[in-house]
Amino acid sequence: MAQVILDRRDVDFVLHEQLEVETLSKHEKFEEFTRKTIDLIVSEARNLAVKEMLPTLKPGDEEGCTFDKGQVRVPESFHKLHGLFREGGWIAMCDDPEWGGQGMPATVALAAKNFFNGANFPFTLNTLLTHGAGKLVEIFGTEKQKQLFLKKMYTGEWGGTMLLTEPEAGSDVGALTTTAVMNDDGTYSISGSKIFISSGENDLVENIIHPVLARIEGAPAGTSGISLFLVPKIRVNDDGSLGEFNDVVCTGIEHKMGIHGSATCSLTLGGKGQCRGTLLGEVNKGMRAMFVMMNEARLDVGMQALGCASASFTNALNYARERVQGRHLQAAGKDAPPVPIIQHPDVRRMLLTMKAYTEGIRSIMYFTGFCEDMIRISGDANEKARWQGLIDVLIPIAKGYASDRAFDVCNMGVQMFGGYGYTKEYPQEQLLRDCKITHIYEGTNGIQAMDLLGRKLSLNQGQAFRDLLDEMTKTADAARAVGRLEGLAEGLSNVIARLEELALHMTKTARSEKMMSAYAVAYPFMEVTGDTIMAWMLLWRAIVAAKRLESGAKKKDVVFYEGQIRSARFFIGSLLPVTLGKMSAVITDDGTIMEMDEESFGGK
Amino acid sequence: MAQVILDRRDVDFVLHEQLEVETLSKHEKFEEFTRKTIDLIVSEARNLAVKEMLPTLKPGDEEGCTFDKGQVRVPESFHKLHGLFREGGWIAMCDDPEWGGQGMPATVALAAKNFFNGANFPFTLNTLLTHGAGKLVEIFGTEKQKQLFLKKMYTGEWGGTMLLTEPEAGSDVGALTTTAVMNDDGTYSISGSKIFISSGENDLVENIIHPVLARIEGAPAGTSGISLFLVPKIRVNDDGSLGEFNDVVCTGIEHKMGIHGSATCSLTLGGKGQCRGTLLGEVNKGMRAMFVMMNEARLDVGMQALGCASASFTNALNYARERVQGRHLQAAGKDAPPVPIIQHPDVRRMLLTMKAYTEGIRSIMYFTGFCEDMIRISGDANEKARWQGLIDVLIPIAKGYASDRAFDVCNMGVQMFGGYGYTKEYPQEQLLRDCKITHIYEGTNGIQAMDLLGRKLSLNQGQAFRDLLDEMTKTADAARAVGRLEGLAEGLSNVIARLEELALHMTKTARSEKMMSAYAVAYPFMEVTGDTIMAWMLLWRAIVAAKRLESGAKKKDVVFYEGQIRSARFFIGSLLPVTLGKMSAVITDDGTIMEMDEESFGGK
Repeated sequence: MAQVILDRRDVDFVLHEQLEVETLSKHEKFEEFTRKTIDLIVSEARNLAVKEMLPTLKPGDEEGCTFDKGQVRVPESFHKLHGLFREGGWIAMCDDPEWGGQGMPATVALAAKNFFNGANFPFTLNTLLTHGAGKLVEIFGTEKQKQLFLKKMYTGEWGGTMLLTEPEAGSDVGALTTTAVMNDDGTYSISGSKIFISSGENDLVENIIHPVLARIEGAPAGTSGISLFLVPKIRVNDDGSLGEFNDVVCTGIEHKMGIHGSATCSLTLGGKGQCRGTLLGEVNKGMRAMFVMMNEARLDVGMQALGCASASFTNALNYARERVQGRHLQAAGKDAPPVPIIQHPDVRRMLLTMKAYTEGIRSIMYFTGFCEDMIRISGDANEKARWQGLIDVLIPIAKGYASDRAFDVCNMGVQMFGGYGYTKEYPQEQLLRDCKITHIYEGTNGIQAMDLLGRKLSLNQGQAFRDLLDEMTKTADAARAVGRLEGLAEGLSNVIARLEELALHMTKTARSEKMMSAYAVAYPFMEVTGDTIMAWMLLWRAIVAAKRLESGAKKKDVVFYEGQIRSARFFIGSLLPVTLGKMSAVITDDGTIMEMDEESFGGK
Repeated sequence: MAQVILDRRDVDFVLHEQLEVETLSKHEKFEEFTRKTIDLIVSEARNLAVKEMLPTLKPGDEEGCTFDKGQVRVPESFHKLHGLFREGGWIAMCDDPEWGGQGMPATVALAAKNFFNGANFPFTLNTLLTHGAGKLVEIFGTEKQKQLFLKKMYTGEWGGTMLLTEPEAGSDVGALTTTAVMNDDGTYSISGSKIFISSGENDLVENIIHPVLARIEGAPAGTSGISLFLVPKIRVNDDGSLGEFNDVVCTGIEHKMGIHGSATCSLTLGGKGQCRGTLLGEVNKGMRAMFVMMNEARLDVGMQALGCASASFTNALNYARERVQGRHLQAAGKDAPPVPIIQHPDVRRMLLTMKAYTEGIRSIMYFTGFCEDMIRISGDANEKARWQGLIDVLIPIAKGYASDRAFDVCNMGVQMFGGYGYTKEYPQEQLLRDCKITHIYEGTNGIQAMDLLGRKLSLNQGQAFRDLLDEMTKTADAARAVGRLEGLAEGLSNVIARLEELALHMTKTARSEKMMSAYAVAYPFMEVTGDTIMAWMLLWRAIVAAKRLESGAKKKDVVFYEGQIRSARFFIGSLLPVTLGKMSAVITDDGTIMEMDEESFGGK
């Protein structure tokens, strides 16, 4: 039987051969997570994904969410799925078992998420925010808040969201106008309107807990006057039982290009003056809480994009092997029989491109999770800081760059099916539509690029970025010692050197009078950084593969390992030259974008 | 009031300043088409597009086409539109007035089509195929076939289609199995099934005339045994009146990602043995007829893509000027007021990218039409052949490259609107969905790349491609004489020289034992060829603009002309270095794509 959703072999390769994730089990915190346990978890996740989640992908898209008088219904099939998801404990995979979590390494959880997102990311999105909101309660909540809410969220009995965006405050969070007024009992009366709230209202759960960004009366303007509140849809009594409706009203849902199975809600809080919330964390420190959640949330979005790309690639590969059409280009006569389309050069080009990006992005994601795990087991503050720095630098790539490239993969994934790819008969067009949202939410990709240039490049006086360059250089050095990878090692070293030069240039320019022009090329700078990281990951994979081949591998493994080396060769040989061209454009940029007269963009 | 659909100023610029289309009116054939007449035509087209077509874009998408017991209904609002389209004579703009055409220059018709496709390309698609089918009748039809069908098609009283694709014969046309058996009266009994037939059945017209590719019993296999037949949905009596139903049955329509307003039909011919057709053209020369139509059809698809890009860019520009959010990046304090997003660097980067591609593609398209017009007025066979060669080389770019880049523009067009772009509240997401089909039909873009490498590069012993290089070189030379464009002229010359080198390399490789590997990089070769042509067009525009500025222009014109020069600077300075990188990757390609073991792409 053909692979479904994604190639398990590649997941295992990253977990066990590239990252050697079972080494984490040497540490007390993860001692349960032996290879056997890890494999079991991945198998369980794969089973759920293949058998239950994937069959609901298309029905979920077609049925979508419906809104009627404040009530939102998710696709019917999602209810059973939600139950199974809860039973399996998949909502809080890495969290404290005391609160209902599974305490597993982030790296392993990402493997599970890879399957879930590849099978049905609109469904998964419903549970993702429950976890994110729970995490805020865990980190910032009082003991009472935790007792009342946390376990019920981590186990999916109640849902969670994040109420951030308002009609006039999207990317500019500081402009929000929702207000909070303290009551005599210490609670706050909340009033305002929020939009684009994923799962803001739904019929999967009996209560929904909303972390809400709002401004306490009299607080400063901008982001420094924003506080975070915990606002349940239905009030919760001190004994944990449900009380009255808390005046959180869904006023409508968006009709969207994709992710139809996830309701995107508009909510009005306190329309009747009856919405109460409790402060979560400190007054005016709401944005800090957001920043704490940001890395995880952005990595999750990258994982959604990877899910779409993984599935689209897997479908395309299966199709290319099955679909027979057209003669071989070198066929002798006109009567030559048609061949599977994988034999056609341009089809192979697309497949190899899709493979390289999908696998490279997978490594970027899992490695980022691995850094998190290293923080969790490390006792050394410097070491922790180093891992954290790597994560911080990688996040805009794991979200912005990865989602862009995943969309390209999905685009090729439609193309691979020809006319059929454009029809709803195959999942390819849905994967493309669903994937598009990952460019937009959790900070548009433009914002990711600004984050990389404005914050991450100079983080810890530039040490975090230097640490990244060091990691990549180590891999290039290691590859140099592997005979057949010497040329590729040169390729990576060369682009790392250019990236270092460019990073210094960008850091300097962003602080000069040419600041605006630096930000105008922040996006291509993010792209070339991502390309370099991609080349790093693919070469790292190739080193592992080459060593296994040297020490003798089974036939089935040989083709897999050879595939790893080819991907690296293709990326470094065929795509990195393009990166070098882009780098040279960024470094010689003459500021045209900012100099342009506003009127010159076109007539009014 | 803001521009709608696209900037009329830019259309006029290409028509009158870049191509000086009114010079065509010096020739007898086009003597009516003075500047005044041309402007009137463009104004009429714009009026129809803005007032009638644009308002039906969203309803057409939402309502879509419906299928019930063999009957297909198009969106209700399309009926009125179809009437207006017919009244205006917009179906056969360039064709012989004797048969109901308007006899206008192709260049002018393309300006009109730019508005139509930008306003509502799914609707326009319905009329496009009517014209294409009519053209086949005009070129290959007998006098009787013309008398019976042509005028009614050119005036839109009857519709037309093209029945080519079958379930097992998509890109591989030669594999088709529809058969034709000659009857005693000289007609043919047709039997077979066709899929993906745009407007194959609809309720806009009382009869639909299908040109059908089929194989006469006993004809050779492959493309050399294919003939073309004219098969009406309802038989037409010798006096022109309608006869019996001709056994052409619609068995279903596709549910698609986009172009919901255009029915994509499956048709069964002769299910009851009652389908009759007449031969159109010569026996076994059906593919030749296809090739005759191919350039026009592919240019039209490029125009659809350009329509989507034009509208998406125009909407994005308007939005960027209106939407106020976020402080200026260099704003002094936190209390600085929010600014229109056009002031943000990354927004400007996107806008300038969208502008450069949209305008460059416009020039490519109109120039291709202009070449057609030159053929029509030229009396010299060599000259005609030269223009024809240019068209032939440009077509894969105008279809394949242009539709890829148009999709990128539409993708940015969604991004520019943030979360709103993902909703159906704005047209951006529909434009992206609609645009995607342009990569697929009329020969996938992969096929366009193969066409460029396999046919067009060596056309007339390479003379056609050399003529293109010469045209581009002329522009670079002209730019060198304009003070402020010297650097840009160097940029273009440099990339032309590299393209020439690469073209020779590719021609050679495609004929060597490395043939398969050459085809594996046909796609990036098409992309760099397209980039070079794009740079040519933008520099050509910049020359015109710079000269107008030198001779003194009005203030409103000054910003427009400056915009032209900036677009060229941006493209040549920021995007051509990437092209050079891609060229170097293609020329040093090591054949990885073809060497890869099929198993190495991933697990089965």
